[in-house]
Amino acid sequence: MHKGRLKTLFTAVAGLFAGLLLAYSILSQINPEAAGGLKASKEGVSEDVVDAALKTYVPPGQLDEYYLFASGGHSGQLFVFGVPSMRRIRSIPVFNKESAVGYGWTTDTKEMLGDFDWGDAHHPALSETKGDYDGRWLFINDNANSRVARVNLDSFTTQQILGPVPNIYGPHGSVFLTPNSEYFMMASRFAGPIPYGTYSDIDNFKEDYKGVMAAIAVDPKDGNMSVGWELLLPPWSYDLSDAGKGVSDGWCFLTTYNTEEAYHLLEVESSQRERDYIVAINWKMLEQAAKDGKVKDIGGAKVIDPNDVPGSVYLVPCAKSPHGVDVTPDGKYFVGNGKLSPTVTVFSFEKFMECVNNKDFQGEERGFPIVNYEKTRVAEVEVGLGPLHTQFDDQGNAYTSLFVESAVAKWSLSDFKVSDKTQVHYCPGHLTAAEGDTVNPDGKYLVSLNKLAKDKYLSVGPSHPESMQLIDLTSSKMKVLYDSPVDPEPHFAQMIKADKIKTFEVYPKDETIEGAVYAKEDARVVRDGNNVTVYMMGFRSRYYPDTVEINEGDHVTWYLTNTDFDEDITHGFGIMFYDINCEAQPGQTQKLEFVADKAGVYPYYCTNFCSALHQEMQGYLLVKPKS
Amino acid sequence: MHKGRLKTLFTAVAGLFAGLLLAYSILSQINPEAAGGLKASKEGVSEDVVDAALKTYVPPGQLDEYYLFASGGHSGQLFVFGVPSMRRIRSIPVFNKESAVGYGWTTDTKEMLGDFDWGDAHHPALSETKGDYDGRWLFINDNANSRVARVNLDSFTTQQILGPVPNIYGPHGSVFLTPNSEYFMMASRFAGPIPYGTYSDIDNFKEDYKGVMAAIAVDPKDGNMSVGWELLLPPWSYDLSDAGKGVSDGWCFLTTYNTEEAYHLLEVESSQRERDYIVAINWKMLEQAAKDGKVKDIGGAKVIDPNDVPGSVYLVPCAKSPHGVDVTPDGKYFVGNGKLSPTVTVFSFEKFMECVNNKDFQGEERGFPIVNYEKTRVAEVEVGLGPLHTQFDDQGNAYTSLFVESAVAKWSLSDFKVSDKTQVHYCPGHLTAAEGDTVNPDGKYLVSLNKLAKDKYLSVGPSHPESMQLIDLTSSKMKVLYDSPVDPEPHFAQMIKADKIKTFEVYPKDETIEGAVYAKEDARVVRDGNNVTVYMMGFRSRYYPDTVEINEGDHVTWYLTNTDFDEDITHGFGIMFYDINCEAQPGQTQKLEFVADKAGVYPYYCTNFCSALHQEMQGYLLVKPKS
Repeated sequence: MHKGRLKTLFTAVAGLFAGLLLAYSILSQINPEAAGGLKASKEGVSEDVVDAALKTYVPPGQLDEYYLFASGGHSGQLFVFGVPSMRRIRSIPVFNKESAVGYGWTTDTKEMLGDFDWGDAHHPALSETKGDYDGRWLFINDNANSRVARVNLDSFTTQQILGPVPNIYGPHGSVFLTPNSEYFMMASRFAGPIPYGTYSDIDNFKEDYKGVMAAIAVDPKDGNMSVGWELLLPPWSYDLSDAGKGVSDGWCFLTTYNTEEAYHLLEVESSQRERDYIVAINWKMLEQAAKDGKVKDIGGAKVIDPNDVPGSVYLVPCAKSPHGVDVTPDGKYFVGNGKLSPTVTVFSFEKFMECVNNKDFQGEERGFPIVNYEKTRVAEVEVGLGPLHTQFDDQGNAYTSLFVESAVAKWSLSDFKVSDKTQVHYCPGHLTAAEGDTVNPDGKYLVSLNKLAKDKYLSVGPSHPESMQLIDLTSSKMKVLYDSPVDPEPHFAQMIKADKIKTFEVYPKDETIEGAVYAKEDARVVRDGNNVTVYMMGFRSRYYPDTVEINEGDHVTWYLTNTDFDEDITHGFGIMFYDINCEAQPGQTQKLEFVADKAGVYPYYCTNFCSALHQEMQGYLLVKPKS
Repeated sequence: MHKGRLKTLFTAVAGLFAGLLLAYSILSQINPEAAGGLKASKEGVSEDVVDAALKTYVPPGQLDEYYLFASGGHSGQLFVFGVPSMRRIRSIPVFNKESAVGYGWTTDTKEMLGDFDWGDAHHPALSETKGDYDGRWLFINDNANSRVARVNLDSFTTQQILGPVPNIYGPHGSVFLTPNSEYFMMASRFAGPIPYGTYSDIDNFKEDYKGVMAAIAVDPKDGNMSVGWELLLPPWSYDLSDAGKGVSDGWCFLTTYNTEEAYHLLEVESSQRERDYIVAINWKMLEQAAKDGKVKDIGGAKVIDPNDVPGSVYLVPCAKSPHGVDVTPDGKYFVGNGKLSPTVTVFSFEKFMECVNNKDFQGEERGFPIVNYEKTRVAEVEVGLGPLHTQFDDQGNAYTSLFVESAVAKWSLSDFKVSDKTQVHYCPGHLTAAEGDTVNPDGKYLVSLNKLAKDKYLSVGPSHPESMQLIDLTSSKMKVLYDSPVDPEPHFAQMIKADKIKTFEVYPKDETIEGAVYAKEDARVVRDGNNVTVYMMGFRSRYYPDTVEINEGDHVTWYLTNTDFDEDITHGFGIMFYDINCEAQPGQTQKLEFVADKAGVYPYYCTNFCSALHQEMQGYLLVKPKS
C-alpha cells in the first residue's frame, strides 16, 4: 500500500479512535439524563422515561426527601408516603380500628374511638410555627362524626380524638391551621338543627337548620385540642377553609355552596346562583368576644351570635359553588376555586380591608355585609374546567387542579396568566406542593390527588384505586414523573421536608407507668375478687408468665411490657378466639381489658414476627368453667 | 500550511467526526443499561442504580407484569402489589373491618366476620389447575381464630370465610393447595383440648392436648370451602405444610417443632432435640377412609384416628425445628428448612416411598413409623444461618431465606451446592418467586419478605415498617432491585402473571337481586310495623330518596343500588353519627341494617368522591323522637 494512503488511513483510524475515546470520555462524565439526551433507548424507553425513573428511584440505603401525609378518607386512616419514591411507608390508624397495632383494642385507644368504628378523614394539617411546618403534630378531621384527631409525629401515633364537636354537622372544611397553630376552624358542611338530637322537619330548613363554625384551640405545649368557641352561621354548606397569614393573619376564609338554601336535589337546586360566597371571618375579634362572655351555651359549647359582634363576618361574592379557598404564602391574596366556573378568582386582602373600612358594600344577606366584588377581586384567571384547589411554589406560581378537565394549570401570582398546563389521570381533587401551605413553599414537587385511576394500574375489579401523581416542578414545564396507586381516599395531603420530623427510638423505661413490668420476677397474676390483673412482660422470645389460669366470668386487666429496648423490635399479643390483639413497641406498656366469658383453653402468642424463635413466643390462658 | 499536513489534519478531523458519529449512532441504538455500562453517572449514580431504576420503573400508561398477593398478618388484610414497580394497588379486607368499602358493615360481610373484628392472615394461596395458578381464587388462613377465607379474583373481594374450623388451635401451616385445588390442609400450631371450650389443666398436656389436621375441600365450580375430614395428631406444633405434586401428588407434608411436648418456656424447652419431623400424610388414603366412615364426630367434624388407617402417616426426621417444607416443582423432592440448623435437608420422595414400601424404619414415635433418615435424605445443603423457606425458579435452582444471616442463598437442585448468596435487609421470613409455587416457575423475580427494616426508610417512630425486597433473577448473581416498605405483616406472598387474572368491569343489572332499584320511580321507603325498608338508588350526583323520615326505635333495612354502570364510578354512603358507611361499586346493590336508636336529624352523603358535584350528593335521615 502507498505510504501516503497508509498514513491517511492511519490518521483516519486514529481520528476515529480519538473520536470514540472523546465520546466515551464525555459519556463517563455526563449524567444519565444527558445520556438520555443522546436518545439512549431500548424497546422504546424514551429520554423522559429515563429521567423520570432516575428522579423517582431511591436506591436501597438512601432515604426519601419528603414525608407525604395523605388522608385516608372513609377508611379513617392516614397514609405516610416518601417522596420522590412515592412508597407508602406507614398507615396510621386514626378513626378506624387497626388490629395490627391493637388500635381500638387497648384500653386507651378503645376509649379514644368511643362509639365509632370509622371516620371520614379529610384534610391533614401539619402544625406550624410562624407559618412554617414545625414537625410536631398533625391534625385531621372526621367529616362523618364531627371529630378531629391529633397524631404525634415523634411516634406516628394518634394521641387525641376530640369530639363529636357540638353543633357541627360534617366539618368538611378543616383542618387549616392559623400560622402559629393557635386555632383551626371547623364549619358545618350540612346545616342541621342544633344541638345534636334536635328534631325538626326538613321543611323548617331555612329557620331551624343552622350552619356553625367552631374554633378549635391548640395548646402550644402539647398540642391538646379543645373547643374554644363557636359561631352561628346561615344554613349554607361550608366547604373548605384557610387561615390568613402575614397581612391577613387574624382572619379566616370559608367557601360556601348552597347559598340557595335548598334541601332537595342539591345537584340541581344548589347550583342555581352564578355566585356563592367566601365568608371572611375576623377570628381575633370573635376570640375577644368569647372572652368578653358574648356567648350562649348550645350543646355544651360557647356559641357566638354574629349579630352580637358586628364587623366580625363579611361575605365576598365568588363564582360558582367554590370548593377550595387558598391564601397565598405572603397572605396578600385569597383565591377562590370556582368548581362550576372555569376560573379561579383572586381577591386582594388589602382591597377587601379597604371595602370593610370604607363600608363599600354591595348589599347584605342574612344580615352580613357583602363587600364590593369588583373592588376586592383583582383577577379572574381562566384556568379551565372544574377548578378545585390551589397550591403554591417558591417562584410566585400557583397550581390549580381541574377536576373536569383532568389537568393541572400553572399560573402566575404576578400577572395572573396561565403559563402551563399538564394532563393528570384522572379527575384531580386536591393538590399538594412541597411545604405548599407554608409561608415558604419549596417548589420542586407537586402531587395531584386523582379520584379516578381507570386503566392506569393492573385491574382490581369494578372499583379501581385512587391515584397520586408526582409532578416535577423544577423546570418551566410541569412533568408527570410517577403514578402511585393509593387506597381510598386521599382528599388532601401535605408534604414536609424529612429532616423536620424527629422520632424517638424506644419508649423509655419508666417505673411509674401503670402496669409496667421490667423484670421477670415482677411478672405476676393478681386476683381481687372477680378482678384479675395480669402483669406480663415480653421479650425475645418469651412471655412471663406463659400460663395464666383464671375463672370464667373474671374481669381481666392485662398489662404487657415489651422489655426489648431495641428499635424496631415490636412484639404482638393475640389471644385465640377472644378477638384480642395488640402490639407493644420497644419499651412500651399496653393495657387490655376483657371479660373471660368463654371457658376453655386459649393459646396466646406473639403476632409480630420478632426473632428466630418467634414461633415459640407463646403461652396458654386457661379459663376454668364456672360449674 | 503544507498541503499534506492540511490533508492529514482534515483526515484526522474527519476521523474524529466519524468516530463521534459512530459513537452517537451506537448510543442511539443501545439501551440505557448499556449506556450505564459506559459508566453514565451523575452525583454518584452508579450503573447498578440506573439498571435497577429502569428495571423497576413502570412509566405512566404502562402496567406491571405480575400481581403480588401478600398477606397482611395481624392486620387481617391482603395486600395487592404490582411487580416490578412494587406499588401497592389495593388492600383487600379479609378478616378486618374496612369502612372505606363497608366491609363488616353491610349485612353479608358483617355476618361473614361473625364474632371477630380481626384475624391473623398468614399464607395466601392462589388456586391451581394441574399445578398451575389459574387466577380464579385466593385462599388465606387466620391463625388466631382458625378460619380461612376465599377472595374471588374477578372482583378482588372476600366472598367466604369458613370457621372457626373445629379442633384446630392456630392453623399456621396453611393454605397450601393440592395441584387441582381439591384440598388444602390446616394443622394446629398449638396443641389443645378438643373440642373448643374443653378445659384441661396444662399439666395434662401430653394426654389431653391434641394436634389436629383438617382437610378443607374446595368446590371446583365456585371455590366454596367446606371441612372435609380431620386427623388426630400428637400434641406437637405443626408449623408449615406443602402438598405433593407430580410423583408425590396425593401426599402432603407438615413440619413440626416442639416434638419435645413442652408447655413452658418453649424458647428453650422446645429446642432440645437435634431433630424434629416432617410428617408425611397420604391424604388420598385418608379421604377414602373418611368416605368409608372411619371417623368419629368431635366438635362437629369427622375426625379420623390414624390408628384406624395404618400406612397413612409417617415421620421423616429433619433438623432442627424446621419452619418451611417445600415441594420442588417436579414433586420429586421435599425440602425441610432447618430454622435452628444451618441447613436445608432435601428428601427424595421416591426414596421415601421405598422406605415406606420396604418398611425401612428407624423406630416409631406416638405410634407412627419413622422412616430411615439416611436413605430418604439426599442432601443437607449448608445454606447458612436460620433457613426458613425455599422457593424455585425455572432453571432448576432453589432460593432459601436465611433469617439469622439476613440473606438469601441460591442453590442447585442438581448438585445441591450453593452458587450465590445476597444480603437482604433485614431478617427475611418467607420468599416468593414469580409463579414460584407452581409446576412451572417463571424465575425472573424473587421477593424477600423481610421482618425488620431498621434504617431503610424515613423513620416512623420506634416500630418500623416491614420491608419487601425485589430481587432480579435474570442473571447468575441475584441483584436487589428495590426496597418496598409494607404494613404489618406479610408472612407469605404469591406472584402471578398479570394476564391470568380476569376481572369484571361492572356488576350486571339484575332485577332479581334482593332490594335492587334501577329506576328512580322504584326508589321508596316501605313501612311494616316498626320495620322500615329503604330502597335507594344512587348515581352521579344524587340519591333517590334524598330525605328519609322514620321513627326512633325503628328497625331499618337499607338497600343502595349504584346505577352508574361505568367502571370505577363507585359511590359511598355514610350516615352521620350512626357509625355506618359502605360503598356500592358500579351496578352493585348493598344492604345495611340498623336500629334507629337516636332521634334527630342525620345527614347522609356520598363518601367516595364520584363527580364534580360529589359534594352535593347527600340527603337527610330524620328520626322522629318517640315521645
